[in-house]
Amino acid sequence: MKTVFSEKHKLRNVKTELAGGELVAPFECPVRAEHILNRVKDVQLGDIIAPNSYGLDPINRIHDGNYVNFLERCWTEWQKTGHKGEAIPIVFPVRTMRQKRPNDIEGQLGYYALGAETSIGDGTYEAARSAVDVALTAQKIVSAGERSAFALCRPPGHHAAADLYGGYCFFNNAAIAAQSFLDEGASRVAILDVDFHHGNGTQSIFYNREDVLFLSLHGDPVDAFPHYLGYDDENGAGHGEGFTANFPMKPGTDYTDWQEALKQACARISDYSPDALVISLGVDTFENDPISFFKLKTDDFKRYGAVLASLNLPTLFVMEGGYAVEEIGINAVNVLTGFEGG
Amino acid sequence: MKTVFSEKHKLRNVKTELAGGELVAPFECPVRAEHILNRVKDVQLGDIIAPNSYGLDPINRIHDGNYVNFLERCWTEWQKTGHKGEAIPIVFPVRTMRQKRPNDIEGQLGYYALGAETSIGDGTYEAARSAVDVALTAQKIVSAGERSAFALCRPPGHHAAADLYGGYCFFNNAAIAAQSFLDEGASRVAILDVDFHHGNGTQSIFYNREDVLFLSLHGDPVDAFPHYLGYDDENGAGHGEGFTANFPMKPGTDYTDWQEALKQACARISDYSPDALVISLGVDTFENDPISFFKLKTDDFKRYGAVLASLNLPTLFVMEGGYAVEEIGINAVNVLTGFEGG
Repeated sequence: MKTVFSEKHKLRNVKTELAGGELVAPFECPVRAEHILNRVKDVQLGDIIAPNSYGLDPINRIHDGNYVNFLERCWTEWQKTGHKGEAIPIVFPVRTMRQKRPNDIEGQLGYYALGAETSIGDGTYEAARSAVDVALTAQKIVSAGERSAFALCRPPGHHAAADLYGGYCFFNNAAIAAQSFLDEGASRVAILDVDFHHGNGTQSIFYNREDVLFLSLHGDPVDAFPHYLGYDDENGAGHGEGFTANFPMKPGTDYTDWQEALKQACARISDYSPDALVISLGVDTFENDPISFFKLKTDDFKRYGAVLASLNLPTLFVMEGGYAVEEIGINAVNVLTGFEGG
Repeated sequence: MKTVFSEKHKLRNVKTELAGGELVAPFECPVRAEHILNRVKDVQLGDIIAPNSYGLDPINRIHDGNYVNFLERCWTEWQKTGHKGEAIPIVFPVRTMRQKRPNDIEGQLGYYALGAETSIGDGTYEAARSAVDVALTAQKIVSAGERSAFALCRPPGHHAAADLYGGYCFFNNAAIAAQSFLDEGASRVAILDVDFHHGNGTQSIFYNREDVLFLSLHGDPVDAFPHYLGYDDENGAGHGEGFTANFPMKPGTDYTDWQEALKQACARISDYSPDALVISLGVDTFENDPISFFKLKTDDFKRYGAVLASLNLPTLFVMEGGYAVEEIGINAVNVLTGFEGG
């Protein structure tokens, strides 16, 4: 399996994350990608290639143009305010408020954010753009006929909605790749999100569409980030009715229960008979992940890779979360070698 | 004019405010109330009295019961998580998300907050409860026949909606006092919010009602907190259509322009012929306020106090914002002495 990787991920290297009422060093940090890349090399998974540049067109198929423009100019405008910290919103258009975009950068930050944990700093936009190119380059490898490819994206993407960033995500790499499959001729694409956290952005992007089946296995939002989406009664709407499926699971869930949900999700995918499968690959389901509450063990990742392979579909793996940095490489690559029968 | 004041305001003494991407010492701090109290004493405005206790019933007339309960237990539950910082939400139910209250305290914080700037700490709930009692005690002085009274509330209240805290506000002291006038027999109450920031909480609470006229003079939300409410096309809805009026003004507005808006607001109040007037008194319109952009001078506060007096209405002053701590006492009390013809 080929891996697509860009050194530009390192440009996303902010100093602060709001967590537990403090500004701490971000859990989503450059060393994550390095651990995964090293493991890809160690197991000789396959060629490691740099991404091509695909420009803004595929991004604009998924994201709002004004949102993309905001991300591009945010850090420069924030610096003009003279604030000493990184760009973090303080107020949000929640219920009772209007969905109107203000002029000043503080107001725009809140307008385009779903949270306050994800600081924006120098290089954030460039890294996010490179992650999209990584996803698209890997997507085109699969589109061209290879069985699978691994987009080693960083920053991740599945929390990003059409015009919202947050949860460490800016552009929805998996959604952009899925749309690209469709634009190149696929009739149906399935996205299976196995990250510990619900893929709220991906769900919201495709919620009214029948050409993308979205399924997510995740920590019950009653107890887990992002808290306000990912319940099991969310099944899609309009033309998308029946094409979203959520499998929220409780704290302490181990592989025995998790793979039951995976089995159900795989049955749904088989019934849907998609032309391609996109896996939003987060490995924060690991028992030692610092911000999650599932109990998967290292070998379990290999096991479920094999389950995914049994679907017999052209498969694009898009890296999402996973924060136990020592083990993230082993676990992520275990899914891929498991998929390849290793 | 009598002043109602509670020493319990000091219980609201958090260490952190998220501002400019940093955790800084809060602008809304105990010394604010002390400066105002000292000035009340210096000019011998009148008796200073402690509040009576009115319990939760008047709060529950305005706020959601589950929200009140959340504020009461928030700090205790936050401490159980082991987080080292004060309680600050990181994710919010913005657009694309659902209005569902999660179980864990992090999720509940975001569910009940409109921003991330207002930390919750030990004593926050008790201080917020005491501010309500201060407002109600002063309201009953006016209700009993005195021309005016000053509720030296801290924390302030006008950003708090029925089930949202933020902008340094938890319970909407002015709204609770207005409701109390009505519950004691008034037919109509007007609330005039002269704080620099739009009184989004008060507006949202009474937006569908005709028995409370809400008017606000404030920094245009295009440029100023709270950013997503306070535009001039917000005029009320349903039975409340025509009973909300906003006067957003641009950066650099001085008293010449500000008093034109005040004149229009006063004309609306006279036409409405309310039984009582509640002034949400913020003095962050001052030229040296650190987080605002109007240019009122110290003498202007006395001038507009006289304008308010010319309405000839039973008048309750409820303290809201104002952050140039050296001058906050002089400016706030100038409004009150101006009102009294001093």
